Amino acid sequence: MTDLMSKIISLSKRRGFIFQSSEIYGGFGSCYDFGPLGVEMKNNIKKAWWEEMTRSKENIVGLDAAILMSPKIWEASGHLTAGFADELVECKKCHHRFRKDFLEESECPDCAGSLTEPRKFNLMMKTFVGPLEDEASCAYLRAETCQGIYVNFLNVLNSSRLKIPFGIAQIGKAFRNEITPGNFIYRTREFEQMELQWFCHPKEADDFFQYWKKERMKWYLDLGVKKENLRFRDVEKEELAHYAKAATDIEYKFPFGWKEIEGIHNRGEWDLSNHSKHSGEDLRYFDEKKKEKYFPHIIETSVGADRSFLAFLVDAYSEVKGGRTKTTEAAKEEEIVLKLGKKIAPVKLAVLPLVRNKPELVKKAEEIYKSLKSDFACYYDEVGSIGRRYRRQDEIGTIFCLTVDFDSLEKDDLTVRDRDTMKQERIKINDLAEVLKEKLGK
Amino acid sequence: MTDLMSKIISLSKRRGFIFQSSEIYGGFGSCYDFGPLGVEMKNNIKKAWWEEMTRSKENIVGLDAAILMSPKIWEASGHLTAGFADELVECKKCHHRFRKDFLEESECPDCAGSLTEPRKFNLMMKTFVGPLEDEASCAYLRAETCQGIYVNFLNVLNSSRLKIPFGIAQIGKAFRNEITPGNFIYRTREFEQMELQWFCHPKEADDFFQYWKKERMKWYLDLGVKKENLRFRDVEKEELAHYAKAATDIEYKFPFGWKEIEGIHNRGEWDLSNHSKHSGEDLRYFDEKKKEKYFPHIIETSVGADRSFLAFLVDAYSEVKGGRTKTTEAAKEEEIVLKLGKKIAPVKLAVLPLVRNKPELVKKAEEIYKSLKSDFACYYDEVGSIGRRYRRQDEIGTIFCLTVDFDSLEKDDLTVRDRDTMKQERIKINDLAEVLKEKLGK
Repeated sequence: MTDLMSKIISLSKRRGFIFQSSEIYGGFGSCYDFGPLGVEMKNNIKKAWWEEMTRSKENIVGLDAAILMSPKIWEASGHLTAGFADELVECKKCHHRFRKDFLEESECPDCAGSLTEPRKFNLMMKTFVGPLEDEASCAYLRAETCQGIYVNFLNVLNSSRLKIPFGIAQIGKAFRNEITPGNFIYRTREFEQMELQWFCHPKEADDFFQYWKKERMKWYLDLGVKKENLRFRDVEKEELAHYAKAATDIEYKFPFGWKEIEGIHNRGEWDLSNHSKHSGEDLRYFDEKKKEKYFPHIIETSVGADRSFLAFLVDAYSEVKGGRTKTTEAAKEEEIVLKLGKKIAPVKLAVLPLVRNKPELVKKAEEIYKSLKSDFACYYDEVGSIGRRYRRQDEIGTIFCLTVDFDSLEKDDLTVRDRDTMKQERIKINDLAEVLKEKLGK
Repeated sequence: MTDLMSKIISLSKRRGFIFQSSEIYGGFGSCYDFGPLGVEMKNNIKKAWWEEMTRSKENIVGLDAAILMSPKIWEASGHLTAGFADELVECKKCHHRFRKDFLEESECPDCAGSLTEPRKFNLMMKTFVGPLEDEASCAYLRAETCQGIYVNFLNVLNSSRLKIPFGIAQIGKAFRNEITPGNFIYRTREFEQMELQWFCHPKEADDFFQYWKKERMKWYLDLGVKKENLRFRDVEKEELAHYAKAATDIEYKFPFGWKEIEGIHNRGEWDLSNHSKHSGEDLRYFDEKKKEKYFPHIIETSVGADRSFLAFLVDAYSEVKGGRTKTTEAAKEEEIVLKLGKKIAPVKLAVLPLVRNKPELVKKAEEIYKSLKSDFACYYDEVGSIGRRYRRQDEIGTIFCLTVDFDSLEKDDLTVRDRDTMKQERIKINDLAEVLKEKLGK
């Protein structure tokens, strides 16, 4: 664990971004819960992605398929066969299992027994549906959300008036029984995906692959992620999954190294032709104008929502040694500023009366808070010195602090303090909602 | 299956609200997928609930806990014991199992073997985490989302500045291995909950129970559900779950009878005192002013998101025999109008050029569509007669149809047709965005 990751994990818990799951019972696996600020931030990320896909772009509709689905789908997709598996070795004495390729990094069993030959271990998480716990009632938690899109391809086509090229977007949970989860919320057994499956004519697939690469990189940049922390990594031919014709990862420079946060794949006709074969349904598309029938090729853009959450958080984290606000009592401490983009920050505004022992100030601040809170994610705080309160807001990435001071009572205005520049601007309370909408791009 | 339910299921599939899961593979269990219109409508319901809780109300924060959590939680909550179980009888010959209380309704096994004595069957869905499939790696899919809130009570308290009374709101999936799922999306094994847990002083619990009953009923009414289709049902003392001191259901009048869509429960100190006992963590609250330490009592409001989705859908469904628009070619058919509330409807606007063979009309309509689509859930349609297109929009609940006609080209205006009244109003295109925001309450 790097020093920086420790600080981010600590901040996440202290301020309510991310808690360890089941903490009062000693925690559980690699599961994490999103706290009050975390859930708002994650919702902002999901909303930004959803709007980008279903509103800003043309010809993309949404879908929300169930986590439980027919095991036949996972047979067809290849997930139940050896392909979707890790190689494990087992200690003959204590029967613990270890990932072969991670063996050197893993803690070896204390018992130090000899190890078996490597054996494939499937990553699908199993459950039982119905009253019997047997082979016939066995079902799986989906290991990827995209299969729910492929098997609904006909349903979407028949219920909409979409024509190729078009896309189906989906956000949802998926589960993989990872042997070695780790790096906080980076690799967990339960995770959330934001996936677009773009269906196009085979001849256009290469161009759309390039198009979506650019679009997806632009999305992170537009939301404020630093350019130097993002890169493409083209997946080598030998590394490609069985379904992929080409693949590029978008990687983020985490404290633990460059790691994938999104994969862009040219899946060719693999998924639709394969599901046609296994289900017996013809999933080819008929182009009425050209009188041409074909399996659309699929370009997939697949974001790890938790991974991108972590990237946004790491990217925004900054420390000012000795403090930014030299005049406060906290000047000698280290100040944290979370420079989250306007769309991503969980709290947009904080309303602060300059002091709490003046009832008129408190009353006015409360009124302003109430007038803003239904339109903006907004916080009210009257406890502690104003400098300390600014720091508390900076630490969670609040975009603007609105301070009600003595002049406010006479002039009916307040100061709007910018998180990043710390510049303060006096704004008339009558103009406040308009000015803030403008500044926050609402 | 009632006739009305058949029609609603058919509409849901035909127009892309709800599809059967894994349909091309013959379907799966009682699982359903939300299609392009369904996911937008469900998101609208979730957003309306989230905003009601975390924005309109005071002192409520959100949370998003993982589906997988420590099995110790389910031991403590009583879910792993006999209490959370159905009584099943088994056929000694074919080994099929049947719910004892549903036996008369269920299809009896063809083999007609004799039945065993009733036996408890637990409803928790099991899975295995880690490389071994044994007792020690056994975990459960959460059977209710609220446990994730209780075990995070301290985390939320310590990371926020909330004081009693306050609430924690959460939306998420839960799973129950129901033996007899049914009534479309009403009772499914995978379902979504929207839950508020309200923590208060024991002396205030009764008052808050009454307060939340009123507030929750008001929510449905404000979103447009018909009053005559909603009622409270107080749960009798004998029926109460082990954790509940009082319980009231909000019931909706479905075609298959009055059924619960939301439960409001006074859970007393059961959850926090019980988790204190089992975890060893003191979950009591300390009131600094009064120097009083106590287990907060909990008032819970628990909505079935899928059940309320179905209630909104059923409530909005209406048919006009012989048609509303007598002048169209469709006059003799039956017209469906989905009278969904403005916040719930998946599509707010449709932009329609009067005819498609006039390029100027089509161009103007497309321009208007493009100018509106980033602010409003908006649809563009040029195929078929205008009457037929109105009907297609009425059927999915589109609030306003904007028709671009020949006058539009000269006067730079268009007609805004109201779904419910069918009245048409001419609006200048320059004023359109403002007028629509006003009408749609944005």
